[in-house]
Amino acid sequence: MGRAACPSGNLAGRLCRDHLHHCDGLSAIARSLGGGPCRRQGRTDRRTVMKVAVIGTGRVGGVIAPNIGQAGHDVVFGVRDPADPKYAAAGQGVPLTAMAYAGAWADVIILAINWDAVDGALAALGPIAGKILIDPINPYDFMNNLAPLIAPDQSAAQLLQGKTDAVVVKALNQVGSGVMADAPQRRIKPLQFVAADDAAAKAKVIGLLTDIGFDARDAGGLDYARELEGMARLWIAQAFGHGLAPDIGWSLTGPDA
Amino acid sequence: MGRAACPSGNLAGRLCRDHLHHCDGLSAIARSLGGGPCRRQGRTDRRTVMKVAVIGTGRVGGVIAPNIGQAGHDVVFGVRDPADPKYAAAGQGVPLTAMAYAGAWADVIILAINWDAVDGALAALGPIAGKILIDPINPYDFMNNLAPLIAPDQSAAQLLQGKTDAVVVKALNQVGSGVMADAPQRRIKPLQFVAADDAAAKAKVIGLLTDIGFDARDAGGLDYARELEGMARLWIAQAFGHGLAPDIGWSLTGPDA
Repeated sequence: MGRAACPSGNLAGRLCRDHLHHCDGLSAIARSLGGGPCRRQGRTDRRTVMKVAVIGTGRVGGVIAPNIGQAGHDVVFGVRDPADPKYAAAGQGVPLTAMAYAGAWADVIILAINWDAVDGALAALGPIAGKILIDPINPYDFMNNLAPLIAPDQSAAQLLQGKTDAVVVKALNQVGSGVMADAPQRRIKPLQFVAADDAAAKAKVIGLLTDIGFDARDAGGLDYARELEGMARLWIAQAFGHGLAPDIGWSLTGPDA
Repeated sequence: MGRAACPSGNLAGRLCRDHLHHCDGLSAIARSLGGGPCRRQGRTDRRTVMKVAVIGTGRVGGVIAPNIGQAGHDVVFGVRDPADPKYAAAGQGVPLTAMAYAGAWADVIILAINWDAVDGALAALGPIAGKILIDPINPYDFMNNLAPLIAPDQSAAQLLQGKTDAVVVKALNQVGSGVMADAPQRRIKPLQFVAADDAAAKAKVIGLLTDIGFDARDAGGLDYARELEGMARLWIAQAFGHGLAPDIGWSLTGPDA
């Protein structure tokens, strides 16, 4: 839904399930006509609009979801209980929906939660076979010197793939929210690698990340997720232990930059 | 010795052991006077001049050694047989010395060789206890899709530390020679992380890498070497499999870059 206005007149981003469907249908019509009640503030070209569910309203989810809507995609949050007042400020114009709804509605699901919440979230999402499941999780103990929470020869993404029949794509884990937030406005686009075994899913995610301001690149198969999680360990250590400003991102630059 | 002229008049970089000592002594005197026969083309400030031995004259060693000399440090190559004609073109003004000489002479040794040559090189270097041993090795099978040559939960650096009583510092492995070559001339300095357990050794290597054009940063202890080798796996895959130009390096950039 992004920052689209809902026909219910509810602009707070708290759409009921009917309105979500309703507005979603109107979005499609509006797109075909180049306008309409579900206005998009961002991109309005002919690229595929994705239906993206961001699971979790924390630091990463909280900045990624509005940017996805701003880029012209349909986006909702998936949370435990959309009526819980604790989410009231988190929405930022992005509809809050129940996990099962988000799982059923979305084409692309971003699992912006901690590693220890994965099993519960997968259960709450319900059937998501074949959907794209973006894994931004960094399986490190943030209270204990970034010690790995999993065997050091494994990646969260590969373990996650073992738990679901969705198509796991590793991405959005390599920098913190301070970089994600204003990526669309930056002159030098922050690097964000994407690792997956499914080429079509990977291409779709690279497109989505490009839309929200990243220099998104194919890192290789899901076996490269271990290296992407290592990049995150380095970045987090820089930002929290070595004085790197938390809005500093990775980039790839050459002699002429 | 860097690009210093030797009192023997031998400008080809092929100094005998006596001349190496001789010129080295003159370098120290010359530095104290701000000039002299062992001229330095590069930096001439009061920072500590290091005696650096680069083991191997391959792509990495071949570009790093001249840059180290250019920056005002004393540098030699350590090779199996300095008289072997195959090294004739490799020196680029940097003296070719035997491995045992390089090991005995240097304060800092850069092991710019392949993983499978490590044991032989350590034996040839002789006693190097307490010296700084920079490990730029990436233990991947370059002919087989970058499959790890070691257990995937280990790093070459940690395994190397188990083989020597030198102080192992992981660095100079994260980009290829195309980035290292002109790093001193770049506006955006290429990132190069340094991982080591010994803080003094790490600081010295960060200084050396800064001198040769890198944005050198403390990555953490030697347990972070695994992540730095992962960065190399990503970079190599980009450069050889995903179309990245081989002169593109990592950097850290913010919203104002």
